[in-house]
Amino acid sequence: MIDIKTLILVAHPELASSQTQQFLKASAAGLPDVTWHHLDAITTPDVAAERELLVEADRIIFQFPLYWYNVPASLNAWMAAVLTSPFIAGAGQSEQPLAGKTVGVVVNTGMPAKAFQAGGEVGFTLDALLTPLRALAQMAGMKWQPIFAINQFANFRDAEQQKLLVAYQRYLTQPTPDTLSSRLAWFEQRLQALVAKLPANQQQQGQLILSTLQQDQADYADLKATVAMLKEGSDDLG
Amino acid sequence: MIDIKTLILVAHPELASSQTQQFLKASAAGLPDVTWHHLDAITTPDVAAERELLVEADRIIFQFPLYWYNVPASLNAWMAAVLTSPFIAGAGQSEQPLAGKTVGVVVNTGMPAKAFQAGGEVGFTLDALLTPLRALAQMAGMKWQPIFAINQFANFRDAEQQKLLVAYQRYLTQPTPDTLSSRLAWFEQRLQALVAKLPANQQQQGQLILSTLQQDQADYADLKATVAMLKEGSDDLG
Repeated sequence: MIDIKTLILVAHPELASSQTQQFLKASAAGLPDVTWHHLDAITTPDVAAERELLVEADRIIFQFPLYWYNVPASLNAWMAAVLTSPFIAGAGQSEQPLAGKTVGVVVNTGMPAKAFQAGGEVGFTLDALLTPLRALAQMAGMKWQPIFAINQFANFRDAEQQKLLVAYQRYLTQPTPDTLSSRLAWFEQRLQALVAKLPANQQQQGQLILSTLQQDQADYADLKATVAMLKEGSDDLG
Repeated sequence: MIDIKTLILVAHPELASSQTQQFLKASAAGLPDVTWHHLDAITTPDVAAERELLVEADRIIFQFPLYWYNVPASLNAWMAAVLTSPFIAGAGQSEQPLAGKTVGVVVNTGMPAKAFQAGGEVGFTLDALLTPLRALAQMAGMKWQPIFAINQFANFRDAEQQKLLVAYQRYLTQPTPDTLSSRLAWFEQRLQALVAKLPANQQQQGQLILSTLQQDQADYADLKATVAMLKEGSDDLG
Protein backbone atom coordinates (compact mmCIF):
# COMPACT_ATOMS: atom_id res chain seq x y z
CA MET A 1 0.00 0.00 0.00
CA ILE A 2 1.31 3.40 -1.02
CA ASP A 3 1.09 5.82 1.86
CA ILE A 4 0.01 9.22 0.51
CA LYS A 5 -0.59 12.00 2.99
CA THR A 6 -3.27 14.37 1.76
CA LEU A 7 -3.98 17.82 3.16
CA ILE A 8 -7.31 19.43 2.24
CA LEU A 9 -7.27 23.21 2.57
CA VAL A 10 -10.94 24.10 2.73
CA ALA A 11 -11.91 27.73 2.09
CA HIS A 12 -15.59 28.40 2.69
CA PRO A 13 -17.02 31.26 4.75
CA GLU A 14 -20.21 29.33 5.60
CA LEU A 15 -19.01 25.76 5.88
CA ALA A 16 -21.70 24.50 8.27
CA SER A 17 -24.53 25.52 5.95
CA SER A 18 -22.91 24.22 2.75
CA GLN A 19 -24.53 20.96 1.65
CA THR A 20 -21.68 20.24 -0.74
CA GLN A 21 -18.91 20.77 1.80
CA GLN A 22 -20.70 18.75 4.46
CA PHE A 23 -21.07 15.89 1.99
CA LEU A 24 -17.38 16.10 1.10
CA LYS A 25 -16.39 16.26 4.75
CA ALA A 26 -18.34 13.09 5.50
CA SER A 27 -16.83 11.42 2.41
CA ALA A 28 -13.28 12.23 3.50
CA ALA A 29 -13.84 11.43 7.17
CA GLY A 30 -13.04 7.71 7.11
CA LEU A 31 -9.95 7.94 4.94
CA PRO A 32 -6.53 7.26 6.47
CA ASP A 33 -3.84 9.94 6.07
CA VAL A 34 -6.29 12.63 5.01
CA THR A 35 -6.32 15.90 6.98
CA TRP A 36 -9.26 18.33 6.74
CA HIS A 37 -8.10 21.89 7.41
CA HIS A 38 -10.66 24.71 7.42
CA LEU A 39 -8.94 28.01 6.61
CA ASP A 40 -11.83 30.34 7.52
CA ALA A 41 -11.70 28.99 11.11
CA ILE A 42 -8.22 30.48 11.49
CA THR A 43 -8.21 34.12 12.60
CA THR A 44 -4.45 34.66 12.77
CA PRO A 45 -2.54 31.83 11.12
CA ASP A 46 0.42 30.31 12.98
CA VAL A 47 2.68 30.59 9.96
CA ALA A 48 5.22 27.99 11.10
CA ALA A 49 2.49 25.46 11.90
CA GLU A 50 0.70 26.05 8.58
CA ARG A 51 3.93 25.57 6.66
CA GLU A 52 4.69 22.38 8.58
CA LEU A 53 1.30 20.99 7.51
CA LEU A 54 2.17 21.78 3.89
CA VAL A 55 5.65 20.27 4.11
CA GLU A 56 4.36 17.06 5.72
CA ALA A 57 1.75 16.47 3.01
CA ASP A 58 2.37 14.62 -0.26
CA ARG A 59 -0.76 16.02 -1.84
CA ILE A 60 -2.26 19.44 -1.17
CA ILE A 61 -5.87 20.04 -2.18
CA PHE A 62 -7.39 23.50 -2.47
CA GLN A 63 -11.12 23.02 -1.90
CA PHE A 64 -13.60 25.87 -2.25
CA PRO A 65 -16.71 27.18 -3.95
CA LEU A 66 -16.12 29.46 -6.93
CA TYR A 67 -16.82 33.07 -5.89
CA TRP A 68 -17.20 35.41 -8.86
CA TYR A 69 -15.09 33.06 -10.96
CA ASN A 70 -12.25 33.09 -8.43
CA VAL A 71 -11.12 31.56 -5.13
CA PRO A 72 -12.79 32.89 -1.96
CA ALA A 73 -11.14 35.80 -0.12
CA SER A 74 -10.21 33.54 2.80
CA LEU A 75 -7.93 31.44 0.58
CA ASN A 76 -6.22 34.54 -0.82
CA ALA A 77 -5.78 35.94 2.68
CA TRP A 78 -4.33 32.65 3.97
CA MET A 79 -1.87 32.57 1.05
CA ALA A 80 -0.77 36.15 1.66
CA ALA A 81 -0.13 35.36 5.33
CA VAL A 82 1.49 31.91 5.06
CA LEU A 83 3.36 31.84 1.75
CA THR A 84 6.50 33.80 1.02
CA SER A 85 8.64 33.89 -2.06
CA PRO A 86 11.50 31.83 -0.52
CA PHE A 87 9.02 29.22 0.75
CA ILE A 88 7.50 28.78 -2.74
CA ALA A 89 10.31 29.53 -5.18
CA GLY A 90 13.30 28.70 -2.95
CA ALA A 91 15.97 31.21 -1.97
CA GLY A 92 19.28 31.14 -3.84
CA GLN A 93 20.61 27.60 -3.78
CA SER A 94 18.14 26.37 -1.16
CA GLU A 95 15.56 23.73 -2.01
CA GLN A 96 11.92 24.50 -2.67
CA PRO A 97 10.01 23.06 0.31
CA LEU A 98 6.98 21.99 -1.77
CA ALA A 99 8.74 20.76 -4.92
CA GLY A 100 7.57 17.40 -6.24
CA LYS A 101 4.35 17.35 -4.21
CA THR A 102 1.00 17.10 -5.96
CA VAL A 103 -1.48 19.96 -5.91
CA GLY A 104 -5.16 19.43 -6.67
CA VAL A 105 -8.28 21.58 -6.73
CA VAL A 106 -11.79 20.57 -5.68
CA VAL A 107 -14.09 23.36 -6.77
CA ASN A 108 -17.86 23.50 -6.54
CA THR A 109 -19.95 25.81 -8.66
CA GLY A 110 -23.59 26.71 -9.06
CA MET A 111 -23.50 26.43 -12.83
CA PRO A 112 -23.60 23.47 -15.21
CA ALA A 113 -20.31 22.10 -16.59
CA LYS A 114 -21.14 23.42 -20.08
CA ALA A 115 -21.08 27.03 -18.80
CA PHE A 116 -17.28 26.78 -18.44
CA GLN A 117 -16.19 26.88 -22.06
CA ALA A 118 -15.85 29.41 -24.87
CA GLY A 119 -19.37 30.37 -25.91
CA GLY A 120 -20.82 29.05 -22.67
CA GLU A 121 -22.51 31.22 -20.06
CA VAL A 122 -19.26 31.96 -18.22
CA GLY A 123 -17.17 31.71 -21.39
CA PHE A 124 -13.98 30.50 -19.73
CA THR A 125 -12.82 27.07 -18.55
CA LEU A 126 -12.11 26.33 -14.89
CA ASP A 127 -8.48 25.72 -15.97
CA ALA A 128 -8.39 29.31 -17.27
CA LEU A 129 -10.23 30.84 -14.30
CA LEU A 130 -7.90 29.13 -11.82
CA THR A 131 -4.70 30.14 -13.63
CA PRO A 132 -3.41 31.87 -10.44
CA LEU A 133 -3.29 28.49 -8.66
CA ARG A 134 -1.58 26.89 -11.65
CA ALA A 135 1.04 29.67 -11.63
CA LEU A 136 1.60 29.08 -7.90
CA ALA A 137 1.98 25.32 -8.41
CA GLN A 138 4.44 25.88 -11.24
CA MET A 139 6.49 28.36 -9.23
CA ALA A 140 6.61 25.89 -6.32
CA GLY A 141 7.70 23.01 -8.56
CA MET A 142 4.56 21.02 -7.77
CA LYS A 143 2.70 18.55 -9.99
CA TRP A 144 -0.76 19.65 -11.09
CA GLN A 145 -3.61 17.19 -10.61
CA PRO A 146 -6.49 17.87 -13.04
CA ILE A 147 -9.23 19.96 -11.42
CA PHE A 148 -12.08 18.09 -9.71
CA ALA A 149 -15.24 20.09 -10.41
CA ILE A 150 -18.59 19.60 -8.71
CA ASN A 151 -21.28 21.50 -10.60
CA GLN A 152 -24.74 22.10 -9.13
CA PHE A 153 -24.51 19.58 -6.30
CA ALA A 154 -28.03 20.54 -5.18
CA ASN A 155 -29.41 18.70 -8.22
CA PHE A 156 -27.54 15.43 -7.51
CA ARG A 157 -29.69 12.33 -6.92
CA ASP A 158 -28.62 9.50 -4.64
CA ALA A 159 -26.83 7.53 -7.36
CA GLU A 160 -24.91 10.63 -8.47
CA GLN A 161 -23.96 11.36 -4.88
CA GLN A 162 -22.62 7.81 -4.47
CA LYS A 163 -20.55 8.19 -7.63
CA LEU A 164 -19.27 11.55 -6.41
CA LEU A 165 -18.29 10.04 -3.06
CA VAL A 166 -16.07 7.38 -4.69
CA ALA A 167 -14.64 9.79 -7.28
CA TYR A 168 -13.79 12.31 -4.54
CA GLN A 169 -12.15 9.65 -2.35
CA ARG A 170 -10.08 8.53 -5.34
CA TYR A 171 -9.10 12.13 -6.08
CA LEU A 172 -7.84 12.54 -2.54
CA THR A 173 -5.94 9.28 -2.15
CA GLN A 174 -5.28 7.50 -5.46
CA PRO A 175 -1.77 7.78 -6.93
CA THR A 176 -1.55 9.98 -10.01
CA PRO A 177 -1.88 9.85 -12.96
CA ASP A 178 -5.39 8.44 -12.98
CA THR A 179 -4.76 5.37 -15.19
CA LEU A 180 -6.79 2.14 -15.30
CA SER A 181 -4.09 0.27 -13.38
CA SER A 182 -3.87 2.81 -10.58
CA ARG A 183 -7.66 2.82 -10.44
CA LEU A 184 -7.78 -0.99 -10.14
CA ALA A 185 -5.03 -0.94 -7.49
CA TRP A 186 -6.97 1.67 -5.55
CA PHE A 187 -10.19 -0.37 -5.61
CA GLU A 188 -8.30 -3.50 -4.55
CA GLN A 189 -6.82 -1.68 -1.59
CA ARG A 190 -10.20 -0.29 -0.55
CA LEU A 191 -11.81 -3.72 -0.95
CA GLN A 192 -9.10 -5.38 1.14
CA ALA A 193 -9.77 -2.89 3.93
CA LEU A 194 -13.50 -3.62 3.70
CA VAL A 195 -13.07 -7.42 3.64
CA ALA A 196 -10.81 -7.26 6.69
CA LYS A 197 -13.68 -5.69 8.62
CA LEU A 198 -16.27 -8.36 7.66
CA PRO A 199 -17.53 -10.81 10.30
CA ALA A 200 -15.96 -14.32 10.14
CA ASN A 201 -18.95 -15.94 8.42
CA GLN A 202 -18.73 -13.49 5.50
CA GLN A 203 -14.96 -13.54 5.10
CA GLN A 204 -15.07 -16.30 2.46
CA GLN A 205 -17.46 -14.38 0.21
CA GLY A 206 -15.44 -11.19 0.67
CA GLN A 207 -12.24 -13.00 -0.29
CA LEU A 208 -13.97 -14.36 -3.39
CA ILE A 209 -14.90 -10.87 -4.59
CA LEU A 210 -11.39 -9.69 -3.83
CA SER A 211 -9.76 -12.52 -5.80
CA THR A 212 -12.06 -11.79 -8.76
CA LEU A 213 -10.85 -8.18 -8.77
CA GLN A 214 -7.25 -9.37 -8.46
CA GLN A 215 -7.78 -11.75 -11.40
CA ASP A 216 -9.18 -8.79 -13.41
CA GLN A 217 -6.05 -6.88 -12.61
CA ALA A 218 -3.82 -9.76 -13.70
CA ASP A 219 -5.85 -10.11 -16.93
CA TYR A 220 -5.48 -6.40 -17.54
CA ALA A 221 -1.70 -6.59 -17.02
CA ASP A 222 -1.51 -9.52 -19.49
CA LEU A 223 -3.59 -7.65 -22.04
CA LYS A 224 -1.40 -4.57 -21.70
CA ALA A 225 1.74 -6.65 -22.27
CA THR A 226 0.20 -8.27 -25.37
CA VAL A 227 -0.79 -4.90 -26.83
CA ALA A 228 2.72 -3.59 -26.19
CA MET A 229 4.20 -6.62 -27.97
CA LEU A 230 1.86 -6.24 -30.98
CA LYS A 231 2.66 -2.54 -31.15
CA GLU A 232 6.38 -3.26 -31.13
CA GLY A 233 5.85 -5.79 -33.97
CA SER A 234 3.98 -3.26 -36.11
CA ASP A 235 6.65 -0.65 -35.37
CA ASP A 236 9.25 -3.09 -36.76
CA LEU A 237 7.26 -3.32 -39.98
CA GLY A 238 6.95 0.45 -40.28
CA MET B 1 -15.19 67.60 -24.06
CA ILE B 2 -16.42 64.09 -23.35
CA ASP B 3 -17.38 63.72 -19.73
CA ILE B 4 -16.25 60.28 -18.51
CA LYS B 5 -16.79 59.42 -14.87
CA THR B 6 -14.09 57.08 -13.63
CA LEU B 7 -14.24 55.06 -10.41
CA ILE B 8 -10.96 53.56 -9.15
CA LEU B 9 -11.50 50.62 -6.81
CA VAL B 10 -8.18 50.36 -5.00
CA ALA B 11 -7.43 47.11 -3.16
CA HIS B 12 -4.22 47.26 -1.14
CA PRO B 13 -3.86 46.20 2.49
CA GLU B 14 -0.95 48.59 3.13
CA LEU B 15 -1.80 51.56 0.97
CA ALA B 16 0.07 54.21 2.97
CA SER B 17 3.40 52.37 2.70
CA SER B 18 3.04 51.53 -1.01
CA GLN B 19 5.27 53.79 -3.12
CA THR B 20 3.43 52.76 -6.28
CA GLN B 21 -0.06 53.42 -4.94
CA GLN B 22 0.95 56.76 -3.43
CA PHE B 23 2.39 57.79 -6.79
CA LEU B 24 -0.82 56.74 -8.57
CA LYS B 25 -2.95 58.52 -5.99
CA ALA B 26 -1.04 61.78 -6.55
CA SER B 27 -1.28 61.28 -10.34
CA ALA B 28 -5.06 60.84 -10.21
CA ALA B 29 -5.66 63.59 -7.65
CA GLY B 30 -6.01 66.55 -10.01
CA LEU B 31 -8.23 64.84 -12.56
CA PRO B 32 -11.87 65.88 -12.89
CA ASP B 33 -14.55 63.18 -12.60
CA VAL B 34 -12.16 60.63 -11.11
CA THR B 35 -13.10 59.01 -7.79
CA TRP B 36 -10.51 57.17 -5.68
CA HIS B 37 -12.18 54.47 -3.55
CA HIS B 38 -10.05 52.41 -1.16
CA LEU B 39 -11.73 49.06 -0.51
CA ASP B 40 -9.55 47.94 2.42
CA ALA B 41 -10.69 51.01 4.37
CA ILE B 42 -14.25 49.64 4.34
CA THR B 43 -15.00 47.25 7.20
CA THR B 44 -18.64 46.49 6.41
CA PRO B 45 -19.60 47.75 2.97
CA ASP B 46 -22.82 49.71 2.57
CA VAL B 47 -24.02 47.57 -0.33
CA ALA B 48 -26.50 50.10 -1.72
CA ALA B 49 -23.93 52.93 -1.61
CA GLU B 50 -21.23 50.78 -3.25
CA ARG B 51 -23.60 49.77 -6.04
CA GLU B 52 -24.60 53.40 -6.58
CA LEU B 53 -20.92 54.30 -7.06
CA LEU B 54 -20.65 51.55 -9.68
CA VAL B 55 -23.83 52.56 -11.48
CA GLU B 56 -22.82 56.24 -11.59
CA ALA B 57 -19.42 55.50 -13.15
CA ASP B 58 -18.77 55.16 -16.87
CA ARG B 59 -15.43 53.45 -16.30
CA ILE B 60 -14.60 51.16 -13.39
CA ILE B 61 -10.94 50.47 -12.66
CA PHE B 62 -9.76 47.60 -10.46
CA GLN B 63 -6.40 48.72 -9.08
CA PHE B 64 -4.25 46.41 -6.94
CA PRO B 65 -0.88 44.73 -6.51
CA LEU B 66 -0.70 41.12 -7.72
CA TYR B 67 -0.75 38.78 -4.70
CA TRP B 68 0.31 35.23 -5.56
CA TYR B 69 -0.72 35.82 -9.16
CA ASN B 70 -4.22 36.90 -8.14
CA VAL B 71 -6.20 39.86 -6.83
CA PRO B 72 -5.81 40.69 -3.11
CA ALA B 73 -8.24 39.14 -0.64
CA SER B 74 -9.86 42.52 0.05
CA LEU B 75 -11.05 42.79 -3.55
CA ASN B 76 -12.52 39.29 -3.48
CA ALA B 77 -14.22 40.02 -0.15
CA TRP B 78 -15.68 43.28 -1.48
CA MET B 79 -17.02 41.49 -4.57
CA ALA B 80 -18.61 38.76 -2.47
CA ALA B 81 -20.32 41.39 -0.32
CA VAL B 82 -21.41 43.90 -2.96
CA LEU B 83 -22.09 41.94 -6.14
CA THR B 84 -24.98 39.59 -6.66
CA SER B 85 -26.00 37.59 -9.66
CA PRO B 86 -29.00 39.85 -10.56
CA PHE B 87 -26.81 42.95 -10.21
CA ILE B 88 -24.20 41.56 -12.62
CA ALA B 89 -26.10 39.30 -14.99
CA GLY B 90 -29.54 40.91 -14.73
CA ALA B 91 -32.64 39.08 -13.52
CA GLY B 92 -35.13 37.78 -16.05
CA GLN B 93 -36.00 40.60 -18.44
CA SER B 94 -34.43 43.32 -16.27
CA GLU B 95 -31.47 45.31 -17.52
CA GLN B 96 -27.92 44.67 -16.39
CA PRO B 97 -26.98 47.72 -14.29
CA LEU B 98 -23.33 47.76 -15.47
CA ALA B 99 -23.82 46.84 -19.14
CA GLY B 100 -21.94 49.02 -21.63
CA LYS B 101 -19.59 50.51 -19.05
CA THR B 102 -15.84 50.11 -19.42
CA VAL B 103 -13.82 48.02 -16.98
CA GLY B 104 -10.07 48.40 -16.65
CA VAL B 105 -7.32 46.92 -14.50
CA VAL B 106 -4.27 48.72 -13.10
CA VAL B 107 -2.03 46.04 -11.64
CA ASN B 108 1.42 46.47 -10.15
CA THR B 109 3.84 43.57 -9.80
CA GLY B 110 7.31 43.00 -8.42
CA MET B 111 8.49 41.12 -11.51
CA PRO B 112 9.67 42.28 -14.94
CA ALA B 113 7.16 42.28 -17.82
CA LYS B 114 8.96 39.35 -19.49
CA ALA B 115 8.09 37.09 -16.52
CA PHE B 116 4.46 37.10 -17.63
CA GLN B 117 4.60 34.90 -20.71
CA ALA B 118 4.95 31.21 -21.57
CA GLY B 119 8.51 30.20 -20.70
CA GLY B 120 8.93 33.24 -18.45
CA GLU B 121 9.43 33.05 -14.70
CA VAL B 122 5.70 33.13 -13.96
CA GLY B 123 4.82 31.37 -17.20
CA PHE B 124 1.39 32.96 -17.63
CA THR B 125 0.27 36.32 -19.02
CA LEU B 126 -1.53 38.88 -16.87
CA ASP B 127 -4.51 38.41 -19.21
CA ALA B 128 -4.55 34.72 -18.25
CA LEU B 129 -3.96 35.29 -14.53
CA LEU B 130 -6.77 37.83 -14.33
CA THR B 131 -9.29 35.68 -16.21
CA PRO B 132 -11.73 35.88 -13.25
CA LEU B 133 -12.08 39.64 -13.78
CA ARG B 134 -12.53 39.12 -17.52
CA ALA B 135 -15.29 36.58 -16.82
CA LEU B 136 -16.97 39.06 -14.48
CA ALA B 137 -16.79 41.85 -17.07
CA GLN B 138 -18.23 39.58 -19.74
CA MET B 139 -21.07 38.43 -17.49
CA ALA B 140 -21.88 42.07 -16.66
CA GLY B 141 -21.88 43.09 -20.34
CA MET B 142 -18.97 45.48 -19.79
CA LYS B 143 -16.26 46.50 -22.26
CA TRP B 144 -12.76 45.33 -21.35
CA GLN B 145 -10.00 47.94 -21.43
CA PRO B 146 -6.57 46.33 -21.98
CA ILE B 147 -4.74 45.77 -18.67
CA PHE B 148 -2.44 48.57 -17.48
CA ALA B 149 0.57 46.86 -15.87
CA ILE B 150 3.22 48.54 -13.74
CA ASN B 151 6.16 46.21 -13.24
CA GLN B 152 8.88 46.91 -10.65
CA PHE B 153 7.97 50.52 -9.98
CA ALA B 154 10.82 50.73 -7.42
CA ASN B 155 13.29 50.70 -10.33
CA PHE B 156 11.63 53.59 -12.21
CA ARG B 157 13.76 56.70 -12.77
CA ASP B 158 12.30 60.20 -12.93
CA ALA B 159 11.71 60.13 -16.69
CA GLU B 160 9.96 56.76 -16.45
CA GLN B 161 7.81 58.04 -13.61
CA GLN B 162 6.79 61.06 -15.71
CA LYS B 163 5.83 58.78 -18.58
CA LEU B 164 3.89 56.57 -16.22
CA LEU B 165 2.01 59.56 -14.81
CA VAL B 166 0.74 60.61 -18.24
CA ALA B 167 0.00 57.05 -19.35
CA TYR B 168 -1.95 56.39 -16.15
CA GLN B 169 -3.94 59.63 -16.47
CA ARG B 170 -4.78 58.70 -20.05
CA TYR B 171 -5.82 55.19 -18.95
CA LEU B 172 -8.22 56.69 -16.42
CA THR B 173 -9.80 59.39 -18.55
CA GLN B 174 -9.16 58.99 -22.30
CA PRO B 175 -12.01 57.55 -24.39
CA THR B 176 -11.41 54.00 -25.61
CA PRO B 177 -10.12 52.51 -27.84
CA ASP B 178 -6.67 54.07 -27.50
CA THR B 179 -6.26 55.32 -31.08
CA LEU B 180 -4.03 58.16 -32.29
CA SER B 181 -7.02 60.47 -32.75
CA SER B 182 -8.39 59.86 -29.24
CA ARG B 183 -4.83 60.35 -27.91
CA LEU B 184 -4.50 63.70 -29.75
CA ALA B 185 -7.94 64.81 -28.57
CA TRP B 186 -7.00 63.91 -24.98
CA PHE B 187 -3.77 65.92 -25.15
CA GLU B 188 -5.59 68.91 -26.65
CA GLN B 189 -8.12 68.86 -23.86
CA ARG B 190 -5.40 68.64 -21.19
CA LEU B 191 -3.43 71.44 -22.87
CA GLN B 192 -6.52 73.66 -23.06
CA ALA B 193 -7.03 73.23 -19.33
CA LEU B 194 -3.37 74.10 -18.70
CA VAL B 195 -3.41 77.18 -20.97
CA ALA B 196 -6.54 78.49 -19.26
CA LYS B 197 -4.60 78.53 -15.98
CA LEU B 198 -1.61 80.49 -17.35
CA PRO B 199 -1.05 84.12 -16.27
CA ALA B 200 -2.15 86.77 -18.79
CA ASN B 201 1.36 87.53 -20.07
CA GLN B 202 1.90 83.87 -21.06
CA GLN B 203 -1.51 83.27 -22.61
CA GLN B 204 -0.30 84.12 -26.10
CA GLN B 205 2.50 81.55 -26.03
CA GLY B 206 0.14 78.95 -24.59
CA GLN B 207 -2.40 79.57 -27.35
CA LEU B 208 0.39 79.20 -29.93
CA ILE B 209 1.32 75.73 -28.63
CA LEU B 210 -2.34 74.78 -28.54
CA SER B 211 -2.98 75.88 -32.11
CA THR B 212 0.08 73.88 -33.27
CA LEU B 213 -1.41 70.77 -31.69
CA GLN B 214 -4.80 71.54 -33.25
CA GLN B 215 -3.13 71.95 -36.66
CA ASP B 216 -1.43 68.55 -36.13
CA GLN B 217 -4.82 67.05 -35.45
CA ALA B 218 -6.32 68.63 -38.57
CA ASP B 219 -3.36 67.34 -40.63
CA TYR B 220 -3.84 63.90 -39.17
CA ALA B 221 -7.55 63.96 -40.06
CA ASP B 222 -6.69 65.01 -43.66
CA LEU B 223 -4.09 62.25 -43.93
CA LYS B 224 -6.55 59.69 -42.67
CA ALA B 225 -9.16 60.79 -45.23
CA THR B 226 -6.58 60.59 -48.05
CA VAL B 227 -5.53 57.08 -47.02
CA ALA B 228 -9.18 55.99 -46.87
CA MET B 229 -9.73 57.38 -50.40
CA LEU B 230 -6.62 55.67 -51.80
CA LYS B 231 -7.66 52.42 -50.14
CA GLU B 232 -11.12 52.68 -51.69
CA GLY B 233 -9.52 53.25 -55.09
CA SER B 234 -7.34 50.16 -54.81
CA ASP B 235 -10.35 48.13 -53.65
CA ASP B 236 -12.12 49.11 -56.87
CA LEU B 237 -9.21 47.73 -58.86
CA GLY B 238 -9.19 44.47 -56.94
